[in-house]
Amino acid sequence: MSIRTRLAIVASAAVLLISGTATAADKVYRLKLAETWGPNFPIFGDSTKNMAAMANKMSNGRLKITVDSSNKHKSPLGIFDMVKAGQYDMGHSASYYWKGKDINTLFFTTMPFGMTTPEQYAWFYHGGGMELMKEAYDKHGILSFPGGNTGNQMGGWFRKEINTVEDLKGLKMRIPGFAGEIMAKLGASPTNIPSGELYTSLERNTIDALEWVGPSLDLRMGFHKIAPYYYTGWHEPATELQFMINQKKWNKLPEDLQEILRVAMRTAAYDMYIQSYHESAVNWETMLTDFPNIKVKTFPKPVMDAMRAANDELIIERAKSSPLAQKIVDSQAAYLKKARVWTNISDRAYLDSLDN
Amino acid sequence: MSIRTRLAIVASAAVLLISGTATAADKVYRLKLAETWGPNFPIFGDSTKNMAAMANKMSNGRLKITVDSSNKHKSPLGIFDMVKAGQYDMGHSASYYWKGKDINTLFFTTMPFGMTTPEQYAWFYHGGGMELMKEAYDKHGILSFPGGNTGNQMGGWFRKEINTVEDLKGLKMRIPGFAGEIMAKLGASPTNIPSGELYTSLERNTIDALEWVGPSLDLRMGFHKIAPYYYTGWHEPATELQFMINQKKWNKLPEDLQEILRVAMRTAAYDMYIQSYHESAVNWETMLTDFPNIKVKTFPKPVMDAMRAANDELIIERAKSSPLAQKIVDSQAAYLKKARVWTNISDRAYLDSLDN
Repeated sequence: MSIRTRLAIVASAAVLLISGTATAADKVYRLKLAETWGPNFPIFGDSTKNMAAMANKMSNGRLKITVDSSNKHKSPLGIFDMVKAGQYDMGHSASYYWKGKDINTLFFTTMPFGMTTPEQYAWFYHGGGMELMKEAYDKHGILSFPGGNTGNQMGGWFRKEINTVEDLKGLKMRIPGFAGEIMAKLGASPTNIPSGELYTSLERNTIDALEWVGPSLDLRMGFHKIAPYYYTGWHEPATELQFMINQKKWNKLPEDLQEILRVAMRTAAYDMYIQSYHESAVNWETMLTDFPNIKVKTFPKPVMDAMRAANDELIIERAKSSPLAQKIVDSQAAYLKKARVWTNISDRAYLDSLDN
Repeated sequence: MSIRTRLAIVASAAVLLISGTATAADKVYRLKLAETWGPNFPIFGDSTKNMAAMANKMSNGRLKITVDSSNKHKSPLGIFDMVKAGQYDMGHSASYYWKGKDINTLFFTTMPFGMTTPEQYAWFYHGGGMELMKEAYDKHGILSFPGGNTGNQMGGWFRKEINTVEDLKGLKMRIPGFAGEIMAKLGASPTNIPSGELYTSLERNTIDALEWVGPSLDLRMGFHKIAPYYYTGWHEPATELQFMINQKKWNKLPEDLQEILRVAMRTAAYDMYIQSYHESAVNWETMLTDFPNIKVKTFPKPVMDAMRAANDELIIERAKSSPLAQKIVDSQAAYLKKARVWTNISDRAYLDSLDN
């Protein structure tokens, strides 16, 4: 063996060793995420961007998450199926969109007359909510995490004022989740329509009314031009979006990247709640000055009472769908009862005292 | 040069190269954190443990944060000085404890009659709060971040019922921050005492009354055995603790570890808010059954009015302390006004509607 050959062997061994080290520590994991929202959709879309940016920066580029919006995957309400099938590694959507596929997924977004945002986060993280959500999603091979909260949503936009329960009969309304079932029980025709088609649906009379989110997102959609009656909220007091991950893909990540992803999702979710609060405050202020024709209303007491009664009947019925549904409904009811006493003695008593 | 020599040179170059790679990617950064709280202090202490654990796991052991409690450093109210001097790299405490050292630090914990927790987080992250806090801490060579929120705090424990403003005169009360100044204006003698000495101070009549946090932390302290009147809150609607980092130490961290630390602190802060909410709800429930002798009270309207009037006068005075103080006071007032309209139309209107 010549000197050159020996040197070459030692040198390539060194290179091998170096690139071996590089592979272990620097291997790049790429995850594809599909979101329900259109490209550059504010707040909801900021949540996925915020999460992906934190994950990328914290991992020093080892965790790269690319986000496909609905214009790319063409299936805004098919996120669950695509993540389940492994067509996408991750999803960003809302759990109650999947109630038709699995009733147990209904309860993890928000419930009419249910918990407020801090109450619901406390239920998720300390009251057994995360464990129940895991139980619901395990059989689909999906891990589900909170994905951002809108805070209390507005009751929606209506062409005509709602004065009696009769006014709801025959009303074609975009309203997803359990609230839609309540509206159906009161004689309305609820439907779910992705955000990108909402304005056109209202304009073409496919629907007479719709709820979307609240001032943080509604005003730029222009609904008020067609349906100027804007009702306060009852049906989505704490709408939590959802991050989903294909379980097999998750299992392939090293532990440090799993933790980076878990924390990035958790922070992005909280961050969206605070961003929503800010955007709501700012947009409510400009709404009052820039759009004086919008008529802010609260449903009359008999309408609220009818909604509440329908809710209480339906929830008992829905809980019977499965043993897990019963467990979730019971857990949420018990937690709400406990947490609401505290909400009333703390934040609410404080706000009331300032009226003096 | 012999073959052996040449081989040896190439081999050591390879080893150098490999260990060089290892140093860049695997160098362990150790940070020492001092917290105001005693060892294993619940909730507040959980926040530092949560933050350190996330940082350690996300960095795969490259960021190691050790936490010294007050039994170790013996200076519960000296955290600011120790971080400023570089004696500790990080701290966990409350910004309003430093108002005597720098008046501009007063405003970043909570203010009497001020913002609620989501309102205040929105101000920090979207309303200019973080930028103002940076301005206040820059000259001390410290970076300051939200460190965990208690939610709305209770008004405190009193031996005797407070029926009139006269009852506050001469009252020796542990109450820190701006609320202490309000109490002083009404004739009380406010003081700040670290948590570890609170019970003894009450027992030995060093103080007649105290506020600490709320049901999440107060009940295990035993205050109710001596001072059974428990007042609802007015003075700390959104108490945010504080993470501090010595700026020079921060600058030495690589960018990925800076982001890991930033996100770990941010998440731990939000997490503590939710944990506090949970513990408050749980403890309030057990308080009502286990400690029926506790008398829950709200200050009578004339007392609240006097506190409010003192607050409004004092805040104008305090704002004159420095141009930055004026900027902070104005920013908080403007943001509160905007955010409160939204709080009232959303969460509060929702809670009110359920009383129907």
